[in-house]
Amino acid sequence: MRAQGLHGGDVARVAWELGCDPNLIIDFSANINPRGLPPIAIRALLKAAHDDGGHLRYPDWRSHPLRSTLAQRLEVPIESVILGAGASALITDSIRTVRPSRCLAFTPAFAEYRRACDAIGAVFTGVPLSMSDQFKVNLPRCVELLRTQRPELLILNNPHNPSGSLITASDIRIILDEAAETGTKILIDEAFIDYAPEDQLAAEASTRPGVIAIRSLTKFYGCPGLRIGYAVAHPSTARQIESQMTAWPIGSIALEALTAAVQDHEYARITIDENARQRASLANSLVELGFSTYSSAANFLLVRLPPNRLDSTHVREELLLRHHILVRDCVPFEGLQDGRHIRLAVLTADQNRLLTEALSELGSGGT
Amino acid sequence: MRAQGLHGGDVARVAWELGCDPNLIIDFSANINPRGLPPIAIRALLKAAHDDGGHLRYPDWRSHPLRSTLAQRLEVPIESVILGAGASALITDSIRTVRPSRCLAFTPAFAEYRRACDAIGAVFTGVPLSMSDQFKVNLPRCVELLRTQRPELLILNNPHNPSGSLITASDIRIILDEAAETGTKILIDEAFIDYAPEDQLAAEASTRPGVIAIRSLTKFYGCPGLRIGYAVAHPSTARQIESQMTAWPIGSIALEALTAAVQDHEYARITIDENARQRASLANSLVELGFSTYSSAANFLLVRLPPNRLDSTHVREELLLRHHILVRDCVPFEGLQDGRHIRLAVLTADQNRLLTEALSELGSGGT
Repeated sequence: MRAQGLHGGDVARVAWELGCDPNLIIDFSANINPRGLPPIAIRALLKAAHDDGGHLRYPDWRSHPLRSTLAQRLEVPIESVILGAGASALITDSIRTVRPSRCLAFTPAFAEYRRACDAIGAVFTGVPLSMSDQFKVNLPRCVELLRTQRPELLILNNPHNPSGSLITASDIRIILDEAAETGTKILIDEAFIDYAPEDQLAAEASTRPGVIAIRSLTKFYGCPGLRIGYAVAHPSTARQIESQMTAWPIGSIALEALTAAVQDHEYARITIDENARQRASLANSLVELGFSTYSSAANFLLVRLPPNRLDSTHVREELLLRHHILVRDCVPFEGLQDGRHIRLAVLTADQNRLLTEALSELGSGGT
Repeated sequence: MRAQGLHGGDVARVAWELGCDPNLIIDFSANINPRGLPPIAIRALLKAAHDDGGHLRYPDWRSHPLRSTLAQRLEVPIESVILGAGASALITDSIRTVRPSRCLAFTPAFAEYRRACDAIGAVFTGVPLSMSDQFKVNLPRCVELLRTQRPELLILNNPHNPSGSLITASDIRIILDEAAETGTKILIDEAFIDYAPEDQLAAEASTRPGVIAIRSLTKFYGCPGLRIGYAVAHPSTARQIESQMTAWPIGSIALEALTAAVQDHEYARITIDENARQRASLANSLVELGFSTYSSAANFLLVRLPPNRLDSTHVREELLLRHHILVRDCVPFEGLQDGRHIRLAVLTADQNRLLTEALSELGSGGT
């Protein structure tokens, strides 16, 4: 098997290597809502797919109803909302906008932060989170960091990926106030905040110069195959982000599908409730099997493997070969190279059960 | 009416301003194949739209069959082919890869060249093409330019947009040889080369370090609503382009639809033949009406308005308000600010007839 990539969700390649249909693989390696698109969004998607005229036109996100819908929901000016080809693309566009010589982010961290910095010759400095602190950002330490290091850019990821740890909105406000003092710009990656909506800061980003919030649409609405997400910032910063973006980043079908998806409040409610329930249940099962989990506010769990057993790379490989279950081996993450961690998306009750059964076989010496 | 944008194809906004269905506007302002997607591609698109599993996965262009198909067709290593979110996105990614302090391009020019340079703080210098030369690149002058100016990057656009003028492959080879001597990197924007395939240089780009060729897929296959195009370069350069790109630039539906589209050789043949026929016919009709056209090798015509009549901005507005026909007013193009030029896509015989009828009313004092 090929070495781990920078990201989870590498199902197409894994299926190709296994010689199987990608649909036969249960993917716990990418943190995607297993419900898939809400039915109303599937109908909009199919309608858009059938619209020959729509394919013939350049898709204009600037005047698209999705933009105004999101702006209204956050109660921010429409000029504060920038749609792009997914949260990952907007993170890159935002880092290019700030163009720091040095960027700080807490590690372990999403690999795109470093990749985006490398691409523009910025120095990326990881600030290790402590395993014993459940990978939580320590507020006094963060404030101290700003005061002593005065970085041009600090990335906060809330909830944090891969640990799922949460910073409360009030703690983030303290960080933002301090950052305004030290001249540090803040990129808040809220890709998973839909699971902890009370701690979102996106709306405030529109009134705070130097703060950019990034939101995903396709993780929560189960459709990373469509590429779309958004950034929220002060209108002047938003204009700068747009100037770093390609003219037509988003396909017309994605625009239509997500416009419908965000209307489905019932889907959102059920998703949050069901994820909380399944996350607790999965965490319990894992603990019963001798694994440790960290407290997570998102739709995934960082899992510490029992000592003196298979390492994370072998766990991934065994689950894949024997059960067609794909998990995220965390070895590529800075700070998790000890081979003791895997990250698991919270999927449906049935899928989670298949996973715990497979893990239990692993534990019982099946390997 | 709002001021002209940087680009044609602004149908959604124009329809919104007119308060009409976008499908009621005949769009001559973007150079899109009016046939739309080939039927085989529509079937693939609808199949992809119905594939819930496909939406649930991150779309991986690196291991996608479209990449190998394009590489095989050009007879280049697969590592030389980079898929991205349309030619315009790949132009930006390529300029970021070269990261020139100064970039030269012949003007009038596609607005994204300058925008991409501005975004990275590179100086964009336009080299005016001569109207009396039919906006053709003058080979000795281009060679002289390389020798005297030694720019880090020169953009060649072949066929040239907005004029449609062509540089032959043999002339481009002379430029590339000279550029290798002067240390100039060359970006060849071949967005419209499918209409003059014998002069394409994409395959050679894979063996010439410092040369990047950009190809569109959605103009020729009538689907700019899907965002996809590709770059061809030496594998080492291709890797650098990829490092400037976002991780998942292309949606899964676009990948599937275009994989099918490029298999339809009959569609390609008919498109080229029909475009040549309609282009000649439209040019004749325009000349009969007192307009001048420039020699074009692509699917559009740059048109010079008769003297002492309406200027280009008013022609656009009259056609739009009276006939729901959208043309490209060329005032935003460097070198065409005289208000005497419009650019017209070559559409179907019926659509072209409606256009010439509308233009003829304009000419007969209907305004």
